[in-house]
Amino acid sequence: MPYFDAATTLPLHPLARQALLSALDEGWADPTRLYRDGRRARMLLDAARETLAAELGARTDEVSFTASGTLANHVGVLGALSGNHRKGRHFVHSAVEHSSVLHAAEQFERDGGEVTSVGVDALGRVGTGEFAAALRPDTALAALQSANHEVGTVQPVAEVAELCAEAGVPLLVDAAQSAAWGPVPGRWSLLTASAHKWGGPVGLGVLVVRKGTRYRSPLPADDRGFVDVPSAIAAAVALRAVRQEAASADAALRPLVARLRAELPGLVPDLAVLGDAERRLPHVLTFSCLYVDGEALLHELDRAGFAVSSGSSCSSSTLTPSHVLAAMGALTEGNVRVSLPTGTTAADIDAFLAALPRAVAGTRAHLEPAPASAPLVVDSIGKRCPVPIIELAKRFPTVPVGATVVVLSDDEAARLDVPAWCEMRTQRYVGEADATDYRADAPSGARAYLVERLS
Amino acid sequence: MPYFDAATTLPLHPLARQALLSALDEGWADPTRLYRDGRRARMLLDAARETLAAELGARTDEVSFTASGTLANHVGVLGALSGNHRKGRHFVHSAVEHSSVLHAAEQFERDGGEVTSVGVDALGRVGTGEFAAALRPDTALAALQSANHEVGTVQPVAEVAELCAEAGVPLLVDAAQSAAWGPVPGRWSLLTASAHKWGGPVGLGVLVVRKGTRYRSPLPADDRGFVDVPSAIAAAVALRAVRQEAASADAALRPLVARLRAELPGLVPDLAVLGDAERRLPHVLTFSCLYVDGEALLHELDRAGFAVSSGSSCSSSTLTPSHVLAAMGALTEGNVRVSLPTGTTAADIDAFLAALPRAVAGTRAHLEPAPASAPLVVDSIGKRCPVPIIELAKRFPTVPVGATVVVLSDDEAARLDVPAWCEMRTQRYVGEADATDYRADAPSGARAYLVERLS
Repeated sequence: MPYFDAATTLPLHPLARQALLSALDEGWADPTRLYRDGRRARMLLDAARETLAAELGARTDEVSFTASGTLANHVGVLGALSGNHRKGRHFVHSAVEHSSVLHAAEQFERDGGEVTSVGVDALGRVGTGEFAAALRPDTALAALQSANHEVGTVQPVAEVAELCAEAGVPLLVDAAQSAAWGPVPGRWSLLTASAHKWGGPVGLGVLVVRKGTRYRSPLPADDRGFVDVPSAIAAAVALRAVRQEAASADAALRPLVARLRAELPGLVPDLAVLGDAERRLPHVLTFSCLYVDGEALLHELDRAGFAVSSGSSCSSSTLTPSHVLAAMGALTEGNVRVSLPTGTTAADIDAFLAALPRAVAGTRAHLEPAPASAPLVVDSIGKRCPVPIIELAKRFPTVPVGATVVVLSDDEAARLDVPAWCEMRTQRYVGEADATDYRADAPSGARAYLVERLS
Repeated sequence: MPYFDAATTLPLHPLARQALLSALDEGWADPTRLYRDGRRARMLLDAARETLAAELGARTDEVSFTASGTLANHVGVLGALSGNHRKGRHFVHSAVEHSSVLHAAEQFERDGGEVTSVGVDALGRVGTGEFAAALRPDTALAALQSANHEVGTVQPVAEVAELCAEAGVPLLVDAAQSAAWGPVPGRWSLLTASAHKWGGPVGLGVLVVRKGTRYRSPLPADDRGFVDVPSAIAAAVALRAVRQEAASADAALRPLVARLRAELPGLVPDLAVLGDAERRLPHVLTFSCLYVDGEALLHELDRAGFAVSSGSSCSSSTLTPSHVLAAMGALTEGNVRVSLPTGTTAADIDAFLAALPRAVAGTRAHLEPAPASAPLVVDSIGKRCPVPIIELAKRFPTVPVGATVVVLSDDEAARLDVPAWCEMRTQRYVGEADATDYRADAPSGARAYLVERLS
């Protein structure tokens, strides 16, 4: 079964697995103890930290371990904001950061801090000018991911790090998605990563705090907790291994993704490929399909033997539209992220290209539009995405050019998807209105979305 | 080399190692994903959680995972205090809790909360009456360990849980030291533990929050972080295995510790065995040696082939007197904790009993008292523990019965060790005075400790 969800996690790298087994024998003791077993564990831990530091472009004493990449972002963001609180209580981040950065920002806001989210372009890339403009004299920290986790777009980290350094603002770089591919360039101050994303063990995050960066951990101090030495060793061995394989893996995977990017739109009607075609991770491709329930599509692809994932509103368990796709102004429905592990073959890609059209068609066949309540009003209240868009599309040809169609919906995703559909179909999105203007008993969460037929 | 530091950590249990290896193949995927690999990881995770819940006396949905036992205590204490903040801002804990509980308490205090520390008796055991008396109408949480990590004394957890339940105060039980030996009895509300203490993997803590307990995590919410499935499985397999072996391990180790308790005082002069002889963990024994530098003794024992540890002022890297020994009023110098792993033999104990007297003598030989500055004043300013006690003991026979000896010291440990020495020697500890009363240029941190010779 082709596993196309490398950006979520990878199995332990074979060399890391060997290293883990040795370390369970040699490095199980507490590395802070003075006796022989403890000293041996300490030596192994020091070696692991040294390898990780070298690969991440840091000094050995700047590297610390956390329970996960998520926790590294939580404590990295909150710790740097706390350490720099005398400078001010303002935090700047891009709109497409990982949820762990956004959750830390929300906590900071609840505690009285102020947060600025910098938008991205339609490809998911932050503008250096916009980022620089958001920095203020009281900005205590800025955060920018090295590459986006949902669409693979690479961010201008080195340029932003330079701007931040000039402004005297520490920059935290979430390098979770790019760490396997190479070091993060530039004058950043903090860096976070997660070992299982590069073929290391689950349950090990890395936080780098460069010397001279003010930092105060938000967790209670504790010298008694001790590091997972076997995992640290496995993580170091895995990172060194994948870095050595990175150039050849890039050369192998980048053309496969380019082929998907080129061929998918022609194979499946109403499919939009998202993200930057050039400035991207080598192994990630994301697309959205109109009129498709994302979760149903994942099930169809699973049945066809493909493991892929999605960040879209219609597939995640939280039913919240993806903040990344929303920030890009991209269609959130029927969203699929394909992320290829090393070793993916051209035959795997052939098989996926063969399977996808049937999987999409099978999903679309399950969806039936509801009968119209009035010629120009599409009442989709109580129906989940993608039904509102399907009903809009079915009714649209029945109105004359120049007329306006009103979509009533209480699904938050419609606010993103109606404009995105207009963009894809070259129709005009007029704007929002109160749903009660069109239906007196509309529930309070419902809105009316107006679309003018141009052609 | 006999490893006598089981209370710090254990190598991975052989069955857990097998389970970990299988789980690295079968359970590496993200358990929240919908595809086959994800569903398989989810099934394994559910099974692990079910086993852990059954062994810990909880429901499956009450068990969650953290990065360590330390983190489980941090988030357990702070989360329960936050969830119950409407009841009040008061936290009660015993004076001998693990440092992670004390550090969480310090953070709570810094944030405006009030903390009451309940003292223990000379054996390290908290009194149920004293604990009950500390509970107030505004007490939001109480915490009591199941057994002490430094001296092995078992606490009256079931009784205290009952008192807390009657008073409407949730009780958090830190079960890190006892989890291998059996479930914690009684009506507790939260429970924490650490897998590597029972032969599970490092880097996995467990937090149980019983239904009906108010709780609000102090960490930012994050549904994207995912659990280390292989470690969870290894932890569950290890706990089930050690629980099945617990009765036979207890029967094998308890007499070995009893033998050490009985024979050590006769083998080494000026050695005090600490903790409760009966109500104790089966595998832990702690003692202190007068006139011994604890760190030097650990080195001597390591050279003799024994891995043991210490919580005493004279051996830990922080140079702070052990808060546990201080709360017991016990001697903090030359402290050694012996904690036996399953499989320890009578021959190992023989070897230890043979090696210890030489190791202690070797350590004591390195210490030379300084020349006396005045007949009745022992000036140990600038000298680290155990030198002040050694100098006191050397000078003591030179004063007549009924006379008073003054010890000048700027080492905090002297405040604990001079009274403890008096207790051991049946001499009278008179009290403290300003060091400048006896030496005009005494530094501000120095104190005078007065001892009357009774015999």
